[in-house]
Amino acid sequence: MQTIRMIIEYDGTGYCGWQIQPNGISIQEKLTDALTAVTGEKVTVHGSGRTDAGVHARGQCASFKTKSRIPANRFAPALNTHLPPDICVLETREASPDFHARYSALGKAYSYHLHVHPQGSALLRNAAWQLRQWPDTAKMEAALEMITGTHDFAAFRAANSDVKDTVRTIWKASLYHREPHLRITYQGNGFLYKMVRMLSAAVVQVGLGKMPLEAIRERLNHPAADYRKLTAPPQGLFLDKVYYEAEELPLF
Amino acid sequence: MQTIRMIIEYDGTGYCGWQIQPNGISIQEKLTDALTAVTGEKVTVHGSGRTDAGVHARGQCASFKTKSRIPANRFAPALNTHLPPDICVLETREASPDFHARYSALGKAYSYHLHVHPQGSALLRNAAWQLRQWPDTAKMEAALEMITGTHDFAAFRAANSDVKDTVRTIWKASLYHREPHLRITYQGNGFLYKMVRMLSAAVVQVGLGKMPLEAIRERLNHPAADYRKLTAPPQGLFLDKVYYEAEELPLF
Repeated sequence: MQTIRMIIEYDGTGYCGWQIQPNGISIQEKLTDALTAVTGEKVTVHGSGRTDAGVHARGQCASFKTKSRIPANRFAPALNTHLPPDICVLETREASPDFHARYSALGKAYSYHLHVHPQGSALLRNAAWQLRQWPDTAKMEAALEMITGTHDFAAFRAANSDVKDTVRTIWKASLYHREPHLRITYQGNGFLYKMVRMLSAAVVQVGLGKMPLEAIRERLNHPAADYRKLTAPPQGLFLDKVYYEAEELPLF
Repeated sequence: MQTIRMIIEYDGTGYCGWQIQPNGISIQEKLTDALTAVTGEKVTVHGSGRTDAGVHARGQCASFKTKSRIPANRFAPALNTHLPPDICVLETREASPDFHARYSALGKAYSYHLHVHPQGSALLRNAAWQLRQWPDTAKMEAALEMITGTHDFAAFRAANSDVKDTVRTIWKASLYHREPHLRITYQGNGFLYKMVRMLSAAVVQVGLGKMPLEAIRERLNHPAADYRKLTAPPQGLFLDKVYYEAEELPLF
């Protein structure tokens, strides 16, 4: 029995998200089908976590166990011949038997992309949140500095999420901008359901002058209060990397 | 009667190209339909030139004449409400009555995008030529330097093209690269049919060591000879800008 770890890139536009669901086609289902085609087995694919409909990945990770004797690094090209062009396995390698894409993860990196033009963008329609006016980037940076560190992020998670421990550490949150593009990157030890999209929405609201910076501090200091929750659209979000090795973790 | 000049961005993936054709849906047709919806007239849209199926534009230009009294800058938002999301009119403005998107053009800028990964890319499948190995960028730069300037580019045009004068000037051709991305940009006074894709194919062949640099010189010095013609795939090509004003032209 081999345990295989894989890195997957996908365009989430055409999918109901990572996770297998009764209605809609998921990335996980496409990978499971490809693995059955390659190995002849019924294989369970464990992702590092789910991504929502329309959310993309440059570096989603997943793991599976197989009796197949195909060399670990040959799974990537074999799977790609059975996958649609909007899903691509970038790398497969052997992992230790106790490796699990979700439980072994030490952290993740996400980026949230924005594009600013009064008329939007045809080329980036599925890969960025389209803003009509340029936000105040200094205010956005102040908001990102405020959320960096260890906080109870309960005010920045979807209402239907039932995780008990809502304390997470964001190691680094930064803004890259060059007109007409903006990109917010987040690196942290874990993210609650919809947390990156809710943080991004708040940071953008601050940048557009529609929310005071203090509103972010209040949400971090009083996470359990009842706030109006804004969620940035899914197409701007990319799961860039899942960290498994301590030496990969960002140093500051 | 107003003469309107517009800048259009489009994702060429789902189209047979710019030009109206009996079989297939074109960008020009979609724009013509949108203009009829906005003005109630049958309007003829003149593009700066055609782009092939799968080729994209960040800054295609087109012109049309209309009796409509809609202010010139209001056409862009009005047209966008009638256009699919993969075509976006970025700007419309009034032009002088003798302006014509094709005949008034002084030059164009294109970029050709490449992505290098042994397994390809899901996110860039429609927006870059997927290479499997990293080319020699110094060799590519030498090839780009060789094609810069005024040459007879007959060896770099599609066989079915019947333009008589095949001399063109490339003002600047340069390479940007940061793994896993490469981008070749071209600025010149005009480009023959498929010329940018054929130049890009040759430059990449030189970078991959599959064609000597001297083969490019030979094609420039003896343009009429019979060469094996390679064309880079359409999805890597972007029409970035059309120049109409002398003061917009790149200075070196």
